[in-house]
Amino acid sequence: MFKTQRTNHHRPRRHRAKKAGLPPGSLVYVGEVKTPVPALSVIEYDDTGLAETHFPDLAAWRAHQSAHATRWLNLYGLQDATVMREIGTRYQLHPLVQEDILNTDQRPKVESYGDYLFVVARYLSYDADTLSVSSDQVSLVLARNTVLSFQEQSSGTFEPVRERLRSARGQIRKLGADYLAYALLDALVDQYFVVLEQLSVNTEELEDALLDKPNQASLQTLHQLRRATHNLRRAVWPLREVLNTMIRNEEGFFQPGTGVYLRDVYDHTVHIVESIEALRDLQAGMLDIYLSSLSNRFNIELRALTVITTLFMPATLVTGIFGMNFKHMPVLDLPHGFGLALGLMATIALIMVAIFWRRNWLR
Amino acid sequence: MFKTQRTNHHRPRRHRAKKAGLPPGSLVYVGEVKTPVPALSVIEYDDTGLAETHFPDLAAWRAHQSAHATRWLNLYGLQDATVMREIGTRYQLHPLVQEDILNTDQRPKVESYGDYLFVVARYLSYDADTLSVSSDQVSLVLARNTVLSFQEQSSGTFEPVRERLRSARGQIRKLGADYLAYALLDALVDQYFVVLEQLSVNTEELEDALLDKPNQASLQTLHQLRRATHNLRRAVWPLREVLNTMIRNEEGFFQPGTGVYLRDVYDHTVHIVESIEALRDLQAGMLDIYLSSLSNRFNIELRALTVITTLFMPATLVTGIFGMNFKHMPVLDLPHGFGLALGLMATIALIMVAIFWRRNWLR
Amino acid sequence: MFKTQRTNHHRPRRHRAKKAGLPPGSLVYVGEVKTPVPALSVIEYDDTGLAETHFPDLAAWRAHQSAHATRWLNLYGLQDATVMREIGTRYQLHPLVQEDILNTDQRPKVESYGDYLFVVARYLSYDADTLSVSSDQVSLVLARNTVLSFQEQSSGTFEPVRERLRSARGQIRKLGADYLAYALLDALVDQYFVVLEQLSVNTEELEDALLDKPNQASLQTLHQLRRATHNLRRAVWPLREVLNTMIRNEEGFFQPGTGVYLRDVYDHTVHIVESIEALRDLQAGMLDIYLSSLSNRFNIELRALTVITTLFMPATLVTGIFGMNFKHMPVLDLPHGFGLALGLMATIALIMVAIFWRRNWLR
Amino acid sequence: MFKTQRTNHHRPRRHRAKKAGLPPGSLVYVGEVKTPVPALSVIEYDDTGLAETHFPDLAAWRAHQSAHATRWLNLYGLQDATVMREIGTRYQLHPLVQEDILNTDQRPKVESYGDYLFVVARYLSYDADTLSVSSDQVSLVLARNTVLSFQEQSSGTFEPVRERLRSARGQIRKLGADYLAYALLDALVDQYFVVLEQLSVNTEELEDALLDKPNQASLQTLHQLRRATHNLRRAVWPLREVLNTMIRNEEGFFQPGTGVYLRDVYDHTVHIVESIEALRDLQAGMLDIYLSSLSNRFNIELRALTVITTLFMPATLVTGIFGMNFKHMPVLDLPHGFGLALGLMATIALIMVAIFWRRNWLR
Amino acid sequence: MFKTQRTNHHRPRRHRAKKAGLPPGSLVYVGEVKTPVPALSVIEYDDTGLAETHFPDLAAWRAHQSAHATRWLNLYGLQDATVMREIGTRYQLHPLVQEDILNTDQRPKVESYGDYLFVVARYLSYDADTLSVSSDQVSLVLARNTVLSFQEQSSGTFEPVRERLRSARGQIRKLGADYLAYALLDALVDQYFVVLEQLSVNTEELEDALLDKPNQASLQTLHQLRRATHNLRRAVWPLREVLNTMIRNEEGFFQPGTGVYLRDVYDHTVHIVESIEALRDLQAGMLDIYLSSLSNRFNIELRALTVITTLFMPATLVTGIFGMNFKHMPVLDLPHGFGLALGLMATIALIMVAIFWRRNWLR
Repeated sequence: MFKTQRTNHHRPRRHRAKKAGLPPGSLVYVGEVKTPVPALSVIEYDDTGLAETHFPDLAAWRAHQSAHATRWLNLYGLQDATVMREIGTRYQLHPLVQEDILNTDQRPKVESYGDYLFVVARYLSYDADTLSVSSDQVSLVLARNTVLSFQEQSSGTFEPVRERLRSARGQIRKLGADYLAYALLDALVDQYFVVLEQLSVNTEELEDALLDKPNQASLQTLHQLRRATHNLRRAVWPLREVLNTMIRNEEGFFQPGTGVYLRDVYDHTVHIVESIEALRDLQAGMLDIYLSSLSNRFNIELRALTVITTLFMPATLVTGIFGMNFKHMPVLDLPHGFGLALGLMATIALIMVAIFWRRNWLR
Repeated sequence: MFKTQRTNHHRPRRHRAKKAGLPPGSLVYVGEVKTPVPALSVIEYDDTGLAETHFPDLAAWRAHQSAHATRWLNLYGLQDATVMREIGTRYQLHPLVQEDILNTDQRPKVESYGDYLFVVARYLSYDADTLSVSSDQVSLVLARNTVLSFQEQSSGTFEPVRERLRSARGQIRKLGADYLAYALLDALVDQYFVVLEQLSVNTEELEDALLDKPNQASLQTLHQLRRATHNLRRAVWPLREVLNTMIRNEEGFFQPGTGVYLRDVYDHTVHIVESIEALRDLQAGMLDIYLSSLSNRFNIELRALTVITTLFMPATLVTGIFGMNFKHMPVLDLPHGFGLALGLMATIALIMVAIFWRRNWLR
Repeated sequence: MFKTQRTNHHRPRRHRAKKAGLPPGSLVYVGEVKTPVPALSVIEYDDTGLAETHFPDLAAWRAHQSAHATRWLNLYGLQDATVMREIGTRYQLHPLVQEDILNTDQRPKVESYGDYLFVVARYLSYDADTLSVSSDQVSLVLARNTVLSFQEQSSGTFEPVRERLRSARGQIRKLGADYLAYALLDALVDQYFVVLEQLSVNTEELEDALLDKPNQASLQTLHQLRRATHNLRRAVWPLREVLNTMIRNEEGFFQPGTGVYLRDVYDHTVHIVESIEALRDLQAGMLDIYLSSLSNRFNIELRALTVITTLFMPATLVTGIFGMNFKHMPVLDLPHGFGLALGLMATIALIMVAIFWRRNWLR
Repeated sequence: MFKTQRTNHHRPRRHRAKKAGLPPGSLVYVGEVKTPVPALSVIEYDDTGLAETHFPDLAAWRAHQSAHATRWLNLYGLQDATVMREIGTRYQLHPLVQEDILNTDQRPKVESYGDYLFVVARYLSYDADTLSVSSDQVSLVLARNTVLSFQEQSSGTFEPVRERLRSARGQIRKLGADYLAYALLDALVDQYFVVLEQLSVNTEELEDALLDKPNQASLQTLHQLRRATHNLRRAVWPLREVLNTMIRNEEGFFQPGTGVYLRDVYDHTVHIVESIEALRDLQAGMLDIYLSSLSNRFNIELRALTVITTLFMPATLVTGIFGMNFKHMPVLDLPHGFGLALGLMATIALIMVAIFWRRNWLR
Repeated sequence: MFKTQRTNHHRPRRHRAKKAGLPPGSLVYVGEVKTPVPALSVIEYDDTGLAETHFPDLAAWRAHQSAHATRWLNLYGLQDATVMREIGTRYQLHPLVQEDILNTDQRPKVESYGDYLFVVARYLSYDADTLSVSSDQVSLVLARNTVLSFQEQSSGTFEPVRERLRSARGQIRKLGADYLAYALLDALVDQYFVVLEQLSVNTEELEDALLDKPNQASLQTLHQLRRATHNLRRAVWPLREVLNTMIRNEEGFFQPGTGVYLRDVYDHTVHIVESIEALRDLQAGMLDIYLSSLSNRFNIELRALTVITTLFMPATLVTGIFGMNFKHMPVLDLPHGFGLALGLMATIALIMVAIFWRRNWLR
């Protein structure tokens, strides 16, 4: 049932086009399969303790009894629509929510469905070899005591949150599901800082390379960095709006104490967006420097070559003059005529070199 | 009565200018005739069943009795104003609505006329040969139990909706005319994903070609792709606004359950708009790369040619020197003078080649 | 009293500067005199009939008795301030309104003065010879049963409206002064479509010319087209806002049934604005293509010339070598030496031609 | 006490930086001293008459008794803080208002202080020699029956207003202090039209020069014009906002009849802002034309020179061929060999000239 | 406990990335350590007097008794989280506030926590050697009678405020903590004027250098100035918004009389933002001038070299002609043939020089 599908990492196809014509709410996984077997787990906790369960199959999950007040269900691997359908039925998720969870090219958004809040965010990772930012959709459902999270692949981003839950570090066990949802989003945004830093480092390395020795390959690298920056921006920009909506908290999904934390992660997104804009400005300026340097270098080289050509012209003329076949050219009879001619050529050449040298043309 | 009019596909004339001076509400078809004989059909349905009728002429339609709760009247072929007038009279459409349906260069919009909602959207198709996006106006009228749809040409976009109605797949038969209107718009937007993907593929192919071997024709292709992207954007951008207005649902044309579906298709348009912006950025960056590559290539070629010229200068000077006619040139009497001169030329040339080689000028 | 003033059509001076220092409400005509003798006329109409009167002078107008419910007073020729003052006094127009009517470089605007609405719009015409858009101010005053319209020159734009009034075509005679005001604005906007189409045609012709054979004159033409497009935009952009204000109808100048017509002409302005933006994009892209083509062409020519120079270098060297005066040059004694030397030159030249041919440098 | 300070007109230093560290409300004149001795005058007027007084010193002003309902106090010359302090105390101006009046690099703004409205605007003048726009701050305080105006230098802008007051032209004496404040702002804005026109004339002159014969100096001129346009824009842009705030009249400083006049001057600022944008567009387009023309000219020249070089290559080769020293060159023995050789050279050169001529390369 | 950490001044790493995974509210100093030992001091004052205390350690601070109504606690040196924690506990600061104070790469913001207002601003300084703007975070907490200020390094910016407090100059001692918070922000903004002026001076110096003699290094300098301007803008832009929020004063932290002072410092930020925009425009224009000048210079040089080459071509041809070996060349027998040939060469060269001179090509 689980097949691995190979796709071109560099240029993901827009799979959505293939779904054109299907009725809304059709549960078909749209994206690249990265986890062959779905991995379903539940962490339940409250002030008194924590229980963590990994389910081998859906039947085991069906039989599971809840033991604590707050529940976090996590699913890695989305290509099996039956899993999605069963979870969706149990938690009464709207068909469109189920569809959006499986269509993993959604842009970040938040939608209220009365009983629960549906949040789409993106996990980002940076590949320093291809200089590209790839992204995975992370779907969150925040119900009163429950958080559901869906992702195609385990990226390790949520691991620190699990650790804090297990070790009861900080207040995380005392606060409810809304704080957990915040903690998961915060973990995603923390990862954006990592991507941003790597992008910045690579951009600055390229800047050094450009100033040192510009070549056509640098332009290609710059183009890739700009695209990666664009992709980062595309994930962060709408998330900022999402967090702003969550801070307004019109439906009361968040307790008053959580608002200040949401505002904090919102500030982080604003910070990242501004850094991205600065990065884009830097990259645009680098393009100017590159083009100018390249053109400058060719101009200097062409001038150098033309200078050489120019230097030889007078000497060649002199040889031509003394190579003419006039009968009466007394100068040809001079005993040191040949030496004088060579000296004349050398003198003219030296004068020209001096002039060009003063004009700084002999670089 | 039905004549086919030939127009230049590549550069459609703005027909509206020809109507200047006519009173508002004048029923004249403005656009290209693609369907010679108007095709009028009605699909009626409700929970209990479905009836589909194709009318050979207006008389047949006049005699038709309605059998089900919800009605979808569709008209392909708009150039016969009498058909429009009769439909308009029966459904009490405002003269301006009738005019707008026939003036097929409207931008997407939604207008409430109290008893019905008038929606203009555009069907898009992509021609990979001319790299152009062409568009057809689709006009929808949503009354309480009725949807009217008007288009010059059958494009097959609505066929999946008809199939779902016929097969009673999904909930479509249970929900009313407002859901049908949503389904038609959703079908149009699904088609946009197809156009967007084709445009993206062609853009990326061009990018490969540009990086490989830029030439003047690529620029022309890029220009066409940018125009096509612009046309796509021009159809989607206002539709987003239209859907936003429909979601607000100030006049109550949509039932509560339909709102979530409208929001879904709205999200799709936002997604497409963002992808279009990314595509435009990519295309703008390609222009930079193209111009830089082209200029770079010419610079390298010119340098190569100038290098060749420069290489010959010293040798030519040497021949000139030994071609002078001075009486006293003992060097000319050397037994191996000729060979030495040739050797001198070769040596100078080799030294210059070595210098140019190290400077990377002999590519 | 009526003098014709000559102005530079191509570059209209901003006459407003001459008025600096005058008190507000000073009645001085600011603009170019195009109609030497003011032409004042009134059309009165209602359901029952229509009367049209042209007045030879102000006295005739003073003596005129009104016969129908709705009145449309039109004035062509504004340079005689006494006419303006008398009309202004009779209809109790604010001094600033009178001043604005005579200062014919106003931007489109709408202002409510309680008893009447003051609307400024612009009539546009396109001169295909100078590729320029010229504009005339059209001032409208909409009072309860009266429309006043003021323009320096009869442009024929309002003629279709007059024809519809005379022939009682459409509903125009049944509806009041507010519908008449709409009809006049609609006639102006219809004319914008004509200008837009002509501009588009000229732009596309230029595009063909550019792709075919770019030259410096094309750039000048492009510059003129961009300026003309800018002028068109400058007249339409604020008119859109004006119509939007009129649609809101906060002062109740428009009857409910007229609102839908205003919305229609508003849609037209939005449509024109979008087409203008597309045109501007196209023109900007043409500049890129032009600059690239021009530079490309020169590069190719320069390369061609340099190729020719390069082809001659080896042959010249060969002649130099065999022109040296060494005593011992056995090669010179060969019976077919001359032919061999020529053959050598030809061979080298052919090899070089082959190399350049393969590199595509001999275009 | 009054010293004249020399500053660099072309590049005004930002004097504000020198005040860093002083407490707010510190009364230090920030700007260039242009009027050595402060000139204080009062014009009082109402329906019944007008009295104008110029005060030699503060004592005379202290002793002055008011005779009419509306009062306009004007001060030219701001560098003596004691004058400011005394006026400020008498009219109970907030310390920050006094500071702002003396810090003459404020941007236009309006602030309500309950009892009075504080307005900052700028007087602009254009220097056609340096192509620069210089500006002076004009501060207005509008209290119930009083207008205070402060400016470093008498520019003559307010003279027409004084003339209208003295001659009782228009309604200005009948209306109150709010109308006077409007009249002063209107006088300033009228002056903007003058500056705008001069800038436009110079821009158009430069455009002609550019199209005729572009050179490096034109670029410098263009740069100066763009900076001047920017300075004009910088003064007008916030003034528009100021006038908008005054029109809203939330504090009731303006009587209902004055609102329509404020709206008029507001329209003027909108008009100017639009003309400035058009001017900036024109200037940006001129840069494109300049750069393209310059590059084009150099390309043509370089091509011409290279054409000449190319023309000589074949002839030089011919001379080389007949200059070779082969023993057996029967062609050398032809009686008319020399003439034939010259003829050959001329023929080749003529053919090349013909080819280049047809290709339009001999311009 | 206090270690100095070396960082690269030119390119600060984003330390935030290292915190990814820590729970929110973790107190870890993020930034460069500039003050090795934390310096804690308190200034207390009211109408009656002032007391200033510097604490050697936390214990001394714990034991300190407050003596006056208004208290200003200042901390320089943030790397010891225990100090932050103890202050945070005493003033009941939210864990996120404490975290933000230590994470010194926050963007300017204001947040209300009910009992206190938390403000982040940035101290800026300009390094004229590296042409870079560096910034330090300044965190302010405004509680009812207390202001807390936190900064890594003493920059001297607050010294004038301390002096005014000590000398009781102005009203500062009479007004409360809210006025003190304003005074601190005002001191920061005053410093921005200094930075802006230095940046402007350097930009204008570069402009002179560019117009005089453009070279590749200028471009690099321009790039640095643009980046510095960008950094200045990045600190000021959000501060403007912060001040706007404080002026709205929704939580009542500011007394009515302070509002006018906040509006004043808000105006300063608007002023700075506008000057920054003007500076950016100037810098962008300089790039155009630079690129054009550079290209222009190379074009002129290349033309000059090509002119020289061209001048030699005819003379070389003449020598070739008279160097041919035809038997019958009567011209060679002329007694003054050699002199005539030289004269011919000189004549041709002079004619060409004259032509090039008139075309202005011999610069």
